[in-house]
Amino acid sequence: MSDREYNINVSLERGAEKPMYIQLYERIRDDIEAGVLKHDSRLPTIRGLASMLKVNNVTVVNAYRLLEENKLVYKREGSGTYVLPIKESIIVDIGSRSISEDADYSLQGTNDSEVYDFASASPDPLLFPVTDFKKVVNEVLERDGGNAFTYQDSHGYMPLRQSIGSYMQQIGVSVSAEDINIISGAQQGIDIIARVLLSSGDYVFVESPTYMGAIAVFKSRGAKIVEIPLQSDGLDLSELEKRLRFIKPKFIYIMPNFQNPTGCSYSDRKKRHLLLLCKKYDIMVLEDDYLSELSYTDKVSKPIKAFDKDNRVIYIKSFSKIFMPGLRVAYLVIPQAIKPMVANAKYMTDISTSGFMQRVLDIYFRGDIWNKHLQYMKKEYSIRYFEAVRASKKHLRGAQFQQPDGGLNLWIRLPYEVDCDNLLNQCRTKKVVFTPGTYFLSGEEGKRFIRLSFAAVSTERIADGIAVIGQALELLR
Amino acid sequence: MSDREYNINVSLERGAEKPMYIQLYERIRDDIEAGVLKHDSRLPTIRGLASMLKVNNVTVVNAYRLLEENKLVYKREGSGTYVLPIKESIIVDIGSRSISEDADYSLQGTNDSEVYDFASASPDPLLFPVTDFKKVVNEVLERDGGNAFTYQDSHGYMPLRQSIGSYMQQIGVSVSAEDINIISGAQQGIDIIARVLLSSGDYVFVESPTYMGAIAVFKSRGAKIVEIPLQSDGLDLSELEKRLRFIKPKFIYIMPNFQNPTGCSYSDRKKRHLLLLCKKYDIMVLEDDYLSELSYTDKVSKPIKAFDKDNRVIYIKSFSKIFMPGLRVAYLVIPQAIKPMVANAKYMTDISTSGFMQRVLDIYFRGDIWNKHLQYMKKEYSIRYFEAVRASKKHLRGAQFQQPDGGLNLWIRLPYEVDCDNLLNQCRTKKVVFTPGTYFLSGEEGKRFIRLSFAAVSTERIADGIAVIGQALELLR
Repeated sequence: MSDREYNINVSLERGAEKPMYIQLYERIRDDIEAGVLKHDSRLPTIRGLASMLKVNNVTVVNAYRLLEENKLVYKREGSGTYVLPIKESIIVDIGSRSISEDADYSLQGTNDSEVYDFASASPDPLLFPVTDFKKVVNEVLERDGGNAFTYQDSHGYMPLRQSIGSYMQQIGVSVSAEDINIISGAQQGIDIIARVLLSSGDYVFVESPTYMGAIAVFKSRGAKIVEIPLQSDGLDLSELEKRLRFIKPKFIYIMPNFQNPTGCSYSDRKKRHLLLLCKKYDIMVLEDDYLSELSYTDKVSKPIKAFDKDNRVIYIKSFSKIFMPGLRVAYLVIPQAIKPMVANAKYMTDISTSGFMQRVLDIYFRGDIWNKHLQYMKKEYSIRYFEAVRASKKHLRGAQFQQPDGGLNLWIRLPYEVDCDNLLNQCRTKKVVFTPGTYFLSGEEGKRFIRLSFAAVSTERIADGIAVIGQALELLR
Repeated sequence: MSDREYNINVSLERGAEKPMYIQLYERIRDDIEAGVLKHDSRLPTIRGLASMLKVNNVTVVNAYRLLEENKLVYKREGSGTYVLPIKESIIVDIGSRSISEDADYSLQGTNDSEVYDFASASPDPLLFPVTDFKKVVNEVLERDGGNAFTYQDSHGYMPLRQSIGSYMQQIGVSVSAEDINIISGAQQGIDIIARVLLSSGDYVFVESPTYMGAIAVFKSRGAKIVEIPLQSDGLDLSELEKRLRFIKPKFIYIMPNFQNPTGCSYSDRKKRHLLLLCKKYDIMVLEDDYLSELSYTDKVSKPIKAFDKDNRVIYIKSFSKIFMPGLRVAYLVIPQAIKPMVANAKYMTDISTSGFMQRVLDIYFRGDIWNKHLQYMKKEYSIRYFEAVRASKKHLRGAQFQQPDGGLNLWIRLPYEVDCDNLLNQCRTKKVVFTPGTYFLSGEEGKRFIRLSFAAVSTERIADGIAVIGQALELLR
């Protein structure tokens, strides 16, 4: 499309309350958003448009500046002003449901043991190691008494930070205790990093689909979300680079191992390649490692932090899935540059994480209890995993899924005719619940998926529950 | 000052990049801030100024609108536009120190038992009821096992919300369990309310002096802070009303019982009067009740929430001082209107507060353990309190303080010649620390005060520590 073809059909009102350059800006913006002005097309020259509209050059300059500030156009040196090749549709309104409605899906309120809860990705309470935990709790109380209940350093309890440092070495990440900040759960980590890095109007890139609790936080900071599609081995890097050419996000938020909800894992090659791209465009990575330990194959699932040579990855580690959510302890590994801001944000959020729970976790790491627990959880979950895979293949005819190498979810594509919300309504009547795809993915696409979590359903009941979903599928096809 | 006297000396540049109404706005703003245009003086009429400057009326209208939006002027119906009677000086830059430096004052890092720590307002770890606590912890583990470690409802563990509801009845506040939200400490409560209620540019009124951890949060939301002076029986209500006539804050943040740092308590008359004012100007109150239980007289210290007839008070209750900070459990009582937003903000912050600790606290409230603990803490603290008062009267010659009826602090005005930072430096060499007044109060005024907390120094050592401060005072006078 040449300059001539963009016939801007606007009569600017002189002396109106709204300055002319704003009238002009709004008109061009509307044309871009309506698709009248195509992506990558060139805007008229300043002089040309000014003379066409019989206005001062300054009016056009100001309007173009506003368009640029609002990331609708960009300048190419010596060549003119172009419409950004980013479709409105990629800045989506996912997560428009209130996130705390989450519980609805899992019917947790009902406390009904008959429910087949494939919505909750929380561990089965029966897997909680009560006896070991009790021993450790009493050990802490004996040893530290009231000292376990004073205000803790906002960075965390130093012995725990040291134990975690050693643990990170084991999984291939070299960090010192000083780089580790203890937080009250991974959600708080996401929130703190958003506070430190995001201002209104900033961009964040996310995987599509992704975890809504993160999106809600980014949006609450006024950030604009750009979704990058996932492929079977991780983020679609060519799509990513297309966007990076024109938009500089504050960071990319990713779950490189057993992603939530897809279960997808990045290949090592892709982890390295992603970091090279991030280096090239100088952006940070926010890695949410919520259960990389939970692999059911022999493959080692290293965090992307293990490949991070220039301190570009902020690493968040959750224990909610692998241990228990009720601990409310997680940690951050943060680059030097943002340490003071992170400490300040943590202080403002809740001053410090429970020193008592930090001491308990420290003993877990120092003794052999942690590894013992890990082995136990892996064994328990892998039985459920194989059962869920087997039952889904058997009962969910017409549905498809990629078998993940680990994690707690199957991300299932429904037969074309079936809408996830209808399916859920059908299943609810039979006391089976799961999370609809619309919770993770915007638009029509979301309706084609469901997430089945096998964390909270006992092995014996998995097949029965999935059979119910299969029957409902048959009814709806 | 009449219209004629405001001789606006500005040449507006036509066709400049910056629109004329913005040029005009900036000029008038500068004149107000420089004091050229006095508070409460009337601006020229729109027509008059437009003709004087030879510009369109619309330019002046737009400039005045911007001034109004930026709270520099206000309109009186039928009478014109006036400069707001608010001095720049009342929006102060308190809390410019990084709040997490707090620990510096208390030398906590040193772990040196020889230090006389009058900076920490945290309970002495020796007061922590280890035996009772251990019993309760084991009771919870026996009874609930892994269920104590699942994700908790973001609003809190219902049985605890019910026990707290009954407890609130006892202290004169009628609320239902539904109005109570469990949070991870009072700081988180302040943070959540700020998230829900404050946007950039909003005003918050605070007591002067006040708690910096709250100021830091309000500022992080972009709020403007207006300090209202405290009198011996609470907020200076005539100063408050002067401000309320021209500024509508989102809320007033107060600690009506044993205020931090002054120890000042509001009279019941003042609590009622304050609520009437808030009703008149339709603003909310954020009550931070961090230790109203800790009274050393027979007077009952009711929260202002107990006087709240039209659901205007948001109540935050901390257990950090009266029980232990390491619990990381507190609660909010919130008006119906903001419940969904609060639940959402809580979810984003950390999903939920430890269900385990909530269960422990619930048993405390249900049995008689809570009241037993309360009596014990009151007895222990009152001994320290009387000792601190006695020693201060004896050793701190030339200093003054108003004896509080409860709480954990003495707020001491130094002799005129002595600067709090110099005094602290002197005392540090003798291993005595306290919190300088500049931490709570802006400008020169702050240098005249220190806060002595007697929470963390054993009774036997209080007099010796205060004697050291007395000697340093003598040296500096």
